[in-house]
Amino acid sequence: MPEIPTEQWAQVIEKTGGPVDYKRIPVHKPASDEVLVNIKFSGVCHTDLHAVNGDWPLATKLPLVGGHEGAGIVVARGELVQDVEIGDHVGVKWLNGSCLSCEFCQQSDEPLCPNPLLSGYTVDGTFQEYCIAKAAHVARIPKDVPLDAIAPVLCAGITVYKGLKESGAKPGQWVAIVGAGGGLGSLAQQYARAMGLRVIGIDTGDEKKKMCLEQLGSEHFVDFATSKNLVKDVQAATSDGLGPHAVILVAVNEKPFQQAAEYVRPRGTVVCIGLPAGAYLRAPVFESVIKMITIKGSYVGNRKDSAEAIEFYTRGLIKAPFKVVGLSELQMVYDKMHAGEVAGRYVLDTSR
Amino acid sequence: MPEIPTEQWAQVIEKTGGPVDYKRIPVHKPASDEVLVNIKFSGVCHTDLHAVNGDWPLATKLPLVGGHEGAGIVVARGELVQDVEIGDHVGVKWLNGSCLSCEFCQQSDEPLCPNPLLSGYTVDGTFQEYCIAKAAHVARIPKDVPLDAIAPVLCAGITVYKGLKESGAKPGQWVAIVGAGGGLGSLAQQYARAMGLRVIGIDTGDEKKKMCLEQLGSEHFVDFATSKNLVKDVQAATSDGLGPHAVILVAVNEKPFQQAAEYVRPRGTVVCIGLPAGAYLRAPVFESVIKMITIKGSYVGNRKDSAEAIEFYTRGLIKAPFKVVGLSELQMVYDKMHAGEVAGRYVLDTSR
Amino acid sequence: MPEIPTEQWAQVIEKTGGPVDYKRIPVHKPASDEVLVNIKFSGVCHTDLHAVNGDWPLATKLPLVGGHEGAGIVVARGELVQDVEIGDHVGVKWLNGSCLSCEFCQQSDEPLCPNPLLSGYTVDGTFQEYCIAKAAHVARIPKDVPLDAIAPVLCAGITVYKGLKESGAKPGQWVAIVGAGGGLGSLAQQYARAMGLRVIGIDTGDEKKKMCLEQLGSEHFVDFATSKNLVKDVQAATSDGLGPHAVILVAVNEKPFQQAAEYVRPRGTVVCIGLPAGAYLRAPVFESVIKMITIKGSYVGNRKDSAEAIEFYTRGLIKAPFKVVGLSELQMVYDKMHAGEVAGRYVLDTSR
Amino acid sequence: MPEIPTEQWAQVIEKTGGPVDYKRIPVHKPASDEVLVNIKFSGVCHTDLHAVNGDWPLATKLPLVGGHEGAGIVVARGELVQDVEIGDHVGVKWLNGSCLSCEFCQQSDEPLCPNPLLSGYTVDGTFQEYCIAKAAHVARIPKDVPLDAIAPVLCAGITVYKGLKESGAKPGQWVAIVGAGGGLGSLAQQYARAMGLRVIGIDTGDEKKKMCLEQLGSEHFVDFATSKNLVKDVQAATSDGLGPHAVILVAVNEKPFQQAAEYVRPRGTVVCIGLPAGAYLRAPVFESVIKMITIKGSYVGNRKDSAEAIEFYTRGLIKAPFKVVGLSELQMVYDKMHAGEVAGRYVLDTSR
Repeated sequence: MPEIPTEQWAQVIEKTGGPVDYKRIPVHKPASDEVLVNIKFSGVCHTDLHAVNGDWPLATKLPLVGGHEGAGIVVARGELVQDVEIGDHVGVKWLNGSCLSCEFCQQSDEPLCPNPLLSGYTVDGTFQEYCIAKAAHVARIPKDVPLDAIAPVLCAGITVYKGLKESGAKPGQWVAIVGAGGGLGSLAQQYARAMGLRVIGIDTGDEKKKMCLEQLGSEHFVDFATSKNLVKDVQAATSDGLGPHAVILVAVNEKPFQQAAEYVRPRGTVVCIGLPAGAYLRAPVFESVIKMITIKGSYVGNRKDSAEAIEFYTRGLIKAPFKVVGLSELQMVYDKMHAGEVAGRYVLDTSR
Repeated sequence: MPEIPTEQWAQVIEKTGGPVDYKRIPVHKPASDEVLVNIKFSGVCHTDLHAVNGDWPLATKLPLVGGHEGAGIVVARGELVQDVEIGDHVGVKWLNGSCLSCEFCQQSDEPLCPNPLLSGYTVDGTFQEYCIAKAAHVARIPKDVPLDAIAPVLCAGITVYKGLKESGAKPGQWVAIVGAGGGLGSLAQQYARAMGLRVIGIDTGDEKKKMCLEQLGSEHFVDFATSKNLVKDVQAATSDGLGPHAVILVAVNEKPFQQAAEYVRPRGTVVCIGLPAGAYLRAPVFESVIKMITIKGSYVGNRKDSAEAIEFYTRGLIKAPFKVVGLSELQMVYDKMHAGEVAGRYVLDTSR
Repeated sequence: MPEIPTEQWAQVIEKTGGPVDYKRIPVHKPASDEVLVNIKFSGVCHTDLHAVNGDWPLATKLPLVGGHEGAGIVVARGELVQDVEIGDHVGVKWLNGSCLSCEFCQQSDEPLCPNPLLSGYTVDGTFQEYCIAKAAHVARIPKDVPLDAIAPVLCAGITVYKGLKESGAKPGQWVAIVGAGGGLGSLAQQYARAMGLRVIGIDTGDEKKKMCLEQLGSEHFVDFATSKNLVKDVQAATSDGLGPHAVILVAVNEKPFQQAAEYVRPRGTVVCIGLPAGAYLRAPVFESVIKMITIKGSYVGNRKDSAEAIEFYTRGLIKAPFKVVGLSELQMVYDKMHAGEVAGRYVLDTSR
Repeated sequence: MPEIPTEQWAQVIEKTGGPVDYKRIPVHKPASDEVLVNIKFSGVCHTDLHAVNGDWPLATKLPLVGGHEGAGIVVARGELVQDVEIGDHVGVKWLNGSCLSCEFCQQSDEPLCPNPLLSGYTVDGTFQEYCIAKAAHVARIPKDVPLDAIAPVLCAGITVYKGLKESGAKPGQWVAIVGAGGGLGSLAQQYARAMGLRVIGIDTGDEKKKMCLEQLGSEHFVDFATSKNLVKDVQAATSDGLGPHAVILVAVNEKPFQQAAEYVRPRGTVVCIGLPAGAYLRAPVFESVIKMITIKGSYVGNRKDSAEAIEFYTRGLIKAPFKVVGLSELQMVYDKMHAGEVAGRYVLDTSR
C-alpha cells in the first residue's frame, strides 16, 4: 500500500467566475462514514463550468475544488465503513453523499435528498489527487475497467440511463433522442439500444446522421434543420406511424420541447434531462389531455441506477469517446468549452 | 315489455351555434353490436355547450342530438350482443363506441382510439328518448341506483376518478384539488377521500371553504384569492410541509398550473383535466428536473374506470347534487350556462 | 381475388381419443364480426394432442378441427369488420375470440375472459384450409414475413414472450430459463436476449449446452443432470452471485419449481408456463417470506403481447426452426409426438 | 435532561430455551451512527418467544435482551447523527439496522439486507430501559401519540400494512383477510379499510364474526369452520362473485393457502405473512397458470412503510387493543403465550 501524502495537487477556484488555480493543498482524512479516494482520472462536465461561473441559483462552496466524474482507488476509510475495502476501484459522482434517512433517501430517491453533498459544488470534488466521499455513495467499478474510460460514464452515462428508465419505454418500443449527436445523446442512443429499445436520432448534419445510424444504434435519423415537417417525419419513422413511445430531450429548450409533445405517441412520455437556465416546458393543454401524454423531469441517477449503468458499460455495450489531458490543463478545457469547441469528453489525468 | 315507438321527442341542433329544437324524430334500430337504450335521464355538461358552439377543432355531426350522460333501460339489442339483457339499466357515455381492436383499445385505452364514436358529438347522444349505443361500451348500472342521480357521475364522476388514478397517489398520501368548489372539484374530493387519500381543497370564498371542509372531505382548504403565498400555504397543509404528492387541476389555466408545479412534492404528479381552448401547460425546466416532477394530461375514463367509479357511487360514498328539469327545457339550461349561472348539475327528464 | 370454394380439406377428430380423419368438409361463412381466413400453414402444438386425447378438465367440441397456430390470408369478412382488409395476412391463435366486454377483456386480459372461443378446442381451428376467426382477435402479419415460419410464433413465441413480460425482469437483469433446450425454451432465450435481459440456460446435455451458448443467447448454461449443486451453480452464474432476478419454467414439475424458489434472487419472480396435468407449485413459506419472492402463473399472451412478439420476430431477432409436412400427414406428427420423437416444430402445409 | 444512568433493569436470556432473568446490566453508549433510546414501553411478539426457544434456523446472540416493539425517547446520539434530536420520540423495530449500501438497501428493501441487525435477536432489543439503535432506522413517533399504544404497531401494524401494499390491491377492490380475528388480522382489516379496500374477514366463531363486522371494518365474514364450501362463500362475498383481488394470509398453513389460490380472483394475488416453521406453499399449476395468479411472500416493512403505517395510526384510523404489565413480568407473558392464553397484545412498562 503506497503511503498517503499530506499534500497534493488540485485545481482550486478561489472566487466565483474563476479562474482555476493549479496548486498544492492538504490531503484530508475521511470521517467515520467516509472514504479517501486517490482519484486517477476525472471527466469534465458542463456543470463544472456552471459552478465556476455561478450560473445556478444555488451557491457553491468557496474556495472550491470542482469535478464530479472521478474514478480512482480507495486508500483510506473511516471506522464505520465495512462494505468498501482499501484498494477497491470506485467512482465519485455528483451526489457525494446524502442523509440516507429522509423520505426521499428512504424511497431510493437520494438525488432528491434536501441535504445533499454535491461533489465539486457544495463539497470539494474530483479535480484533485485525493478526494473525500461518503462510503455509501461511491460507485463500485470492476478492476478490469479502465479508469479513464469509465470517468465520463459516472455522470453523463448514468444520467441518460436514468432518463431512459424514467421514460417507462419497454423493450421493442420506440424512443426519440433529441440532441442525438452530442455527448449525452450519443450515450443515450447506446443505452437505449442495450435496453432493447428502438431508436430515432434527432439532430442535424450529415456527419451526425452517419454516426447515429452506423455507430450509435439509431434505426432512423431526422434532421431537424432540413426536415420540412419534423412532427410528421418523426412519427413516420416508427413502425406504425403513431410516433415514439418516449422522447428524451437531452438539451431542453422550448421549441424542441413543444414539438416533442406533438409527435410523441398518445400515452407517451417526454423526459427532460439537462438544466438550461431560464427555460420553460410548454405544451398545449387540449392535446396533452386528449392524448394523455406525460412530461417528466429526470435528474441524476440514484445509487442503483449508477450500478446498473456501469454494468452496461462493463459489458462492453457502451462506448464513450474521450480525450485525456493533465489535471494541470483544466483551464484550457474550460476555455474551449466556453468557446463551444469541445466535441466529446475531456478526461483529466490527476498525475500531471 | 313496453312497445318501442317509431317516433320520439329529441333536442336537435340543426346548425353549429344552435339553438336546439325540441321536436319529434324517428327511433332507430340497433345494428348487430349495438343496443337501443330508453334514456330516462341525461345530465348536461359544458362539453354539450362546446358542441353547440363549435368551440373545438373537431367538427360535430349535423344535425345533432347532443348529450353524453344518459341513464336508461335497454329495450332492444343486436343479434351479436350477449352480455347485455333487455331490461338492464345502463349508462351512455361520451365514448359511445370504439374499434376495440387498435393498439389503444387493445391496451385498455379506448378513449385514445383513433376512430371513436362520441355521444352527442360525432353520433347522436342522450338528449332524446331512445339512444343507440355500442353494447360493449355501455356502463352497467345496478337496478337499485336512481337513474337521475347517477347521470352526472357518467361523465364528471368518471373523469375525476380517472384523473385521481392517473395521479398515482397512494392511500395515505396528499392530493390537492384545484377548483375544489366546482362540479368536478366536488366529486374529485369525495372520490379522493373514498380512495384513502388526504385532500387539500383549493378554491375561493367562505361558502366553498365550508362545503369543502365539512361535506366534501378536505382536511385543509387554501383560498387562492386571499392567500399571501399560495405555494407555501399549500405545502404547509401537508403533514410534513413538503407539499402534496399529487395535484388535480380540474380547470386548467396557466397560472394555477405553474403554481402546482411549484408546490407539488418532489417526485409528485400534476394531472390536468378539462379542455380550456388555447391554454398551455408551462413549468420551469430547472425545477421540474431537480424535483423530478411529472405532468400528465388525463382524458375520460375507460370502461373499467367507469365501472369502478360507478361502484364507488353505488356504495353511497359519493354525493353529486343535481336539479331535474324536462328535456324540453334544455335551451334554458344552455342559456344559464352561457350566463355562468349554473351551480351544480342539471339533469333532464326525457319524459317531459 | 380467387373464389372461395364451398368445400375444403380438413383434419377432423370425430371422438375424443382420435384418430384424425383427413376429409372434405364445408367452408363456413363469417358472421358479422368475423373473418374467413385461408390458412396456408399451421403449426402443431402439444396442446393439440391434449385436445385429441381429452387430457384436460375442459371438454372439446366434437367433431373437432384442431389447430391454433394458423397463418393465412383473409378472404372474406363480416359487415361490421372495418380494420381487417381482404388480402391481409393474419394469424389465428389459441384465443379465437373473447367477449371484449367483461372485466378481464376490459383490462386487456382477454385470455382470462370467462367465455372464450378456443381455436381447435371449443371452435374449429386451423387444421383446415378455411378457418373462421373473430376479426378483433386475429394477429396482423406483415406481408414480407413467410407464413410457414411465423406459424409456431403464434402460440409458442407469444406465450414465452408473455411469460418474460410477466416476470417483471428489466433490461440488464438476469433470467434463468428452465428447459432451455426445448421448443419453448429456445424461443424464450431469444426473446429474453432481444429484450435486453441476460440469460442463464438450464437443461441437460452437451448438444443443448452448445446450442444455448452459441445460438440462442445464453451467457451461461447449467446442466441440471451433472450439476452437483444446482442452486449454487445458478446463483454463481449471475454477476454478483445473488441469483437470477427471474426464472421462467417452461415445463413445470415439482422439483425444478422448488429449486427455482431457492435460487431466485430475493425479491425475484418465478414464472410458470405450461400446463402439466396434476402438478403442484410448492415452496417453503419461511424462505419465500424472508426473501419476498413472487410466484406467478402465466397463460397465453393478449392481443397486444401477440403484436409485440410478432414484431420482434419480424425484425429478425427470433429464429424458430421448423419442418414442413402436408396437412394430410397430421396423424404421423401426432404419432411422433406421442412417441416423444419430435424435436423442433412441425408446420402443416394446408395445400397438400 | 435527566441524567443517563450507568446501570439499568433488563430481561436477559442466558441460554437458548430460557428462562428470562430480570436483572441489572450496564447501559451502553451509542456509536457514531447510533442513538440511545430510553425505552418506555415494549410490545411482546411471538417472535420473541421463537427467539427464546431457538425455533428458527438462525442463531440468536447470547446472552440476549429480547424485544423489538419498543417505543421511547432519544437520550443520546453519536456524532454523525443529524436527523434525530435528543428528546425525539422514536420506535425501535425488528430491523435495528442495515448496511444502507447493498443492492437491497439501495432499492429500499432494507429488510432484505444480507447483514441486518435484528433487535432482540442478533443485537440486544427493547426489553431493557436503554436500548441502542441505528439512527437511520428508528421510526419517528409524533409526541402526542401514547408510547404504550404505538408499541404493537411497530411490528404487527407495519407488517400487515406492508403485506397489503405488496398485494397490489387498489382502492375499491376486495381483499380477504385469513385469520381476521387474531392480532395481525385485526390490524390488517383496519389498515385495509383505511386504504380504501373492501374487506372480507375469514376466521371462526360468533365473537370474532361480530368483532370483524362491527368494529374492524369487514363487510362480510366467512366462518371457515361452519362454511360448507369456503371457496364459493368467499367468492360470493364479493360484489360480482369473482372472488377477492387479494388474499392476506396472516398465519399460513397449507390448507388455507391452497383454498386461497382457489378463491382468489383471476389475476389476483395471495400474500403470505408470518413464519410458521416447516410450512409449504402449495397450489395446482394448471389453475395458477390459467387464472394467472400471483403468490408472494411479504416480510417486515421498510422504513418508508413504517412511517406510513405509523401515520395511519396517528390519524386515529387504527385501534390496537393491549394490556400493560411491568417489564419484570415478562416470564409470565411468555408462559401465557406458551399456553395459548394470550388474546390481544401485552405491552411491557420498563419502569417496573
